[in-house]
Amino acid sequence: MIHTYNDIPPLDKRVGKRVRAYIDTLTKPPGSLGRLEAIAIELAEMTGKPFPTVTPPGVIIFAADHGVTEEGVSAFPQNVTAQMVQNFLNGGAAINVFSRQIQAMFEIVDVGVAEDIESSELVQKKVRYGTANFCKQDAMTRQEAEKAIEIGYERAQTMIAKGIKCLIVGEMGIGNTTASSAILSVILNQNLDELVGIGTGISEEGRKVKQQVIERSIKARQPNPNDPLDVLSKVGGLEIAAMAGAMLAAAENRIPILVDGFICSTAAVIAKCIHPTAADYMFIGHRSVEKGHSRAIRFLEKEPLLQLGLRLGEGSGAAVAFPILQSSTNMLNEMATFQSAGISNKNEKRREGEF
Amino acid sequence: MIHTYNDIPPLDKRVGKRVRAYIDTLTKPPGSLGRLEAIAIELAEMTGKPFPTVTPPGVIIFAADHGVTEEGVSAFPQNVTAQMVQNFLNGGAAINVFSRQIQAMFEIVDVGVAEDIESSELVQKKVRYGTANFCKQDAMTRQEAEKAIEIGYERAQTMIAKGIKCLIVGEMGIGNTTASSAILSVILNQNLDELVGIGTGISEEGRKVKQQVIERSIKARQPNPNDPLDVLSKVGGLEIAAMAGAMLAAAENRIPILVDGFICSTAAVIAKCIHPTAADYMFIGHRSVEKGHSRAIRFLEKEPLLQLGLRLGEGSGAAVAFPILQSSTNMLNEMATFQSAGISNKNEKRREGEF
Repeated sequence: MIHTYNDIPPLDKRVGKRVRAYIDTLTKPPGSLGRLEAIAIELAEMTGKPFPTVTPPGVIIFAADHGVTEEGVSAFPQNVTAQMVQNFLNGGAAINVFSRQIQAMFEIVDVGVAEDIESSELVQKKVRYGTANFCKQDAMTRQEAEKAIEIGYERAQTMIAKGIKCLIVGEMGIGNTTASSAILSVILNQNLDELVGIGTGISEEGRKVKQQVIERSIKARQPNPNDPLDVLSKVGGLEIAAMAGAMLAAAENRIPILVDGFICSTAAVIAKCIHPTAADYMFIGHRSVEKGHSRAIRFLEKEPLLQLGLRLGEGSGAAVAFPILQSSTNMLNEMATFQSAGISNKNEKRREGEF
Repeated sequence: MIHTYNDIPPLDKRVGKRVRAYIDTLTKPPGSLGRLEAIAIELAEMTGKPFPTVTPPGVIIFAADHGVTEEGVSAFPQNVTAQMVQNFLNGGAAINVFSRQIQAMFEIVDVGVAEDIESSELVQKKVRYGTANFCKQDAMTRQEAEKAIEIGYERAQTMIAKGIKCLIVGEMGIGNTTASSAILSVILNQNLDELVGIGTGISEEGRKVKQQVIERSIKARQPNPNDPLDVLSKVGGLEIAAMAGAMLAAAENRIPILVDGFICSTAAVIAKCIHPTAADYMFIGHRSVEKGHSRAIRFLEKEPLLQLGLRLGEGSGAAVAFPILQSSTNMLNEMATFQSAGISNKNEKRREGEF
């Protein structure tokens, strides 16, 4: 492997403890802001800062194609990947809308779309023209999987250098719920029944075909569950690899990661397998209705912020959840303390917790 | 009653149907934005507009005191109401922080604080110096309850005239979970065990005392469950009445209402009792951990947007939830259609739904 991704620092539990005490001095009943208080503490532990911020956030979309679409596993044809990349470039997709809403830095990376897309706005990092049909051969070589991870890592490093304080990674790739279900089935050692959903909207019959395709593929490819690179190269996707790489870069830089739905969480599972500490820097934006997302979330040991019945991907659910992180940091940075506001606290001792 | 509050229009189901069809032409798998799609349709039905907006939102905080605090039902002393109003005026409370985040118009109304607060920033509409201790006598007269409703109605009308597109009402009033539990117990005909929580943070022993105080009060006051004005005047609160009035004004003007937690939802229950159609204009921002909130939500027949373990009040949870409404309208207003983006739709017939 080109890069060992072993530089992820542990959480700063000491600053977390200080922030916990400080929050109890803010002008509200102790604990009354529930999860917002817990998030503030986690953000402090991740960033190592008593008064963390998450703005501006950065959104990086990785796009790539999947040879397995040949098997009829998706409701949309493969060329929709390139068409949607064009839609991202034109600003008309859901993730564009939500990225504008949260004033995110925004970038789209072609890490393996099956056709060439002419655009100076698109970050051209094509590793190959889509993966091979993993039902018939390995999706890609191990070197290609490594390269895709490295691309994701570098794109995130670049955006972090520009000043983002929270990372959202999104994806576009017709067929990528199929790859994600395959990856999770191998790594989590889970039955496919629990992991194969309707993706962009196939019928129950289509879902069964999809499941059979994945079963056959895993049987034929025999990915090693203890080797995330082997899993990625045999049944994975280029954008999933790149997303994992981007998350590893964020964790290395103590930048909180806001994970989106099923595919993004699969990338998060890969990142956690590469370096377990990476997961310490993650929030899960929402619980997707895509079957299998809950299994991935359980492996990551997280509780999603939202549950709004979303299943779009692109990073859209994470972007919708972002204002919650902002509320949490705003609480910490802007609220008055009982002492500063001259308010009678029910427990005077709490003031000692103040910085 | 001074005002009959009977001018609330029905939802515009026709525009809702058009918006539902239009959403299926946007560049995403049909239904994949789940609740955001449903919200967009509801907002269209409320406002009567195919492309509704919710910005700018308005936040009105009603503050008042509760004589029943004499019975030791709260973790904080009564003078904290006035101190917190001062904190609101200084911008240091949670609702200030979250209102700034969502760029809300903001106003604080003294509808019955037990002491005078000198400030040109405070809207002075004191009906009386706090309610009477309803354990010993009626909280207020029927005329005072009517007056408080009318004040809320007028404040909302004024803010709506200034251009707000979504109303959030918040409250401050030490003791107001006690009044809310009493109101809900009478109107919902529910056992107090299910409705009395820890408020700002009393002990389990304190909670039992609170419950006994409410039981004694209801027995002594005998409020008529079919007469919301009677309930308000006997065991209610001035800020709760004002919040209900503000919601009635919003519904009358087809302005969506984003309801906060336990106390705000109690006011919403009152508003629904005064005019059932008022509830058609409501979203519930979050599910509070305050015992009893879920009962109120069930009566309103709503599903909260967030569940973050909040129990602060002030309108804070509604303000934190507001960006979800914004995401929903942004989706509707800004996303490209399959046709405009030139993307292969899996179901070409869907294009017919376009406006």
